[in-house]
Amino acid sequence: MELFFSEDIQDARVRLGADESVHCVRVLRHRAGDEISVIDGRGSLYRCVLEIADAKGAEARILERTPDFGVHPYHLTMAVCPTKNIDRYEWFVEKATEIGVDVVAPVIGDHSERKVLKTDRLRRLALSAAKQSLKGAVPQIAEPRSVRDFIAAAPADALKLICYCFDDVERIPITRVLSDSGQAGKPILILIGPEGDFSPEEAELARAAGWQPVQLGPSRLRTETAALTAVTAVYLRSC
Amino acid sequence: MELFFSEDIQDARVRLGADESVHCVRVLRHRAGDEISVIDGRGSLYRCVLEIADAKGAEARILERTPDFGVHPYHLTMAVCPTKNIDRYEWFVEKATEIGVDVVAPVIGDHSERKVLKTDRLRRLALSAAKQSLKGAVPQIAEPRSVRDFIAAAPADALKLICYCFDDVERIPITRVLSDSGQAGKPILILIGPEGDFSPEEAELARAAGWQPVQLGPSRLRTETAALTAVTAVYLRSC
Repeated sequence: MELFFSEDIQDARVRLGADESVHCVRVLRHRAGDEISVIDGRGSLYRCVLEIADAKGAEARILERTPDFGVHPYHLTMAVCPTKNIDRYEWFVEKATEIGVDVVAPVIGDHSERKVLKTDRLRRLALSAAKQSLKGAVPQIAEPRSVRDFIAAAPADALKLICYCFDDVERIPITRVLSDSGQAGKPILILIGPEGDFSPEEAELARAAGWQPVQLGPSRLRTETAALTAVTAVYLRSC
Repeated sequence: MELFFSEDIQDARVRLGADESVHCVRVLRHRAGDEISVIDGRGSLYRCVLEIADAKGAEARILERTPDFGVHPYHLTMAVCPTKNIDRYEWFVEKATEIGVDVVAPVIGDHSERKVLKTDRLRRLALSAAKQSLKGAVPQIAEPRSVRDFIAAAPADALKLICYCFDDVERIPITRVLSDSGQAGKPILILIGPEGDFSPEEAELARAAGWQPVQLGPSRLRTETAALTAVTAVYLRSC
């Protein structure tokens, strides 16, 4: 099933943007009267009939709406420091979208080598991964901010987990924390540090703000692999 | 820590092959008397002192051996159909090595579009991923064979799981099967089909041979993502 994306859905009508109109009419050669499927990026799927097959601005009439299309039964924010090699970060965004994530928040740590990150390309990747894996909701890509700001701004009622490597305190396996039924239903935030790990100050700030240090098992994982392993741990809990 | 690899280790001496000798002596400029770390690819790490710093054939004397270096507490064979886009399969081999896998067996299904696969490059990727993630054991990359042959040749005493999408029988969540203590300690084999899934005949053959159909949760995962999710499910069980 080919999915289109639109942010302009109202009064039972869907208007496709420039790229999607070209893709629908010129590339896939849809004609007026064809049925198409459109997601709004917020969780709904719309079955529509194409009425204006214009590559500059296609329009369709909604026949049926399916809410919560391809959603996962949790709310997960992954705050991950950008990797030196940006391909690895893009790979993480694609795979995390496929498995199930709600927000990817690039965060810059004291030890981050990469301190800037363009989010436009990450948003395009998240959108195409969501369409490819048949999800009505597209993960939000936040603008980069510092680890310290992110820690300070995190909501008090969330389950907040931080993965780091140094052994200043006992770190509980992430699977054990996630299986704690007392935590069920809470939004989940997981912080993943850069290649050089968090600074002791960042780790201390996080613990003081109620973040639980967790570990991801015995293997030595790259930043993006650790991040995807954490997403998978949350996802598998819901299987 | 930089790891070198050698298959020629005997009488307390390590001989590096051509590539590793060049990397050790020419690229990293190691000199006689330097300490180097070498893995044998079968699980052991050797701390050595370089004695012959020859880029054509370096030799070192073993000071200390560490067995079971970076090993994981399970034995996992992933039998995965090659993806149309080979980059995705290579990505899987790299990430699965990093997380922890023992054998990657490319298998060709009735619905596989890609029926040939070069294993040399996959072996190089597995070796470099094992070195990068500090593991003494390098996953074995098997030569491609048919899904039917693989099913027939699988050992009787192993925990054999097959992931497919069609709903001919109830498929148990992989996490539930893995948490069954009765299965603890058994070698694990997991079969992942091609983009077009297994054929009904392949699925029937597998079930008749004692393979359990499992599912990987609600998300629609690509072949390589499903495969890595299965590896992660096994890995997290050991956290």
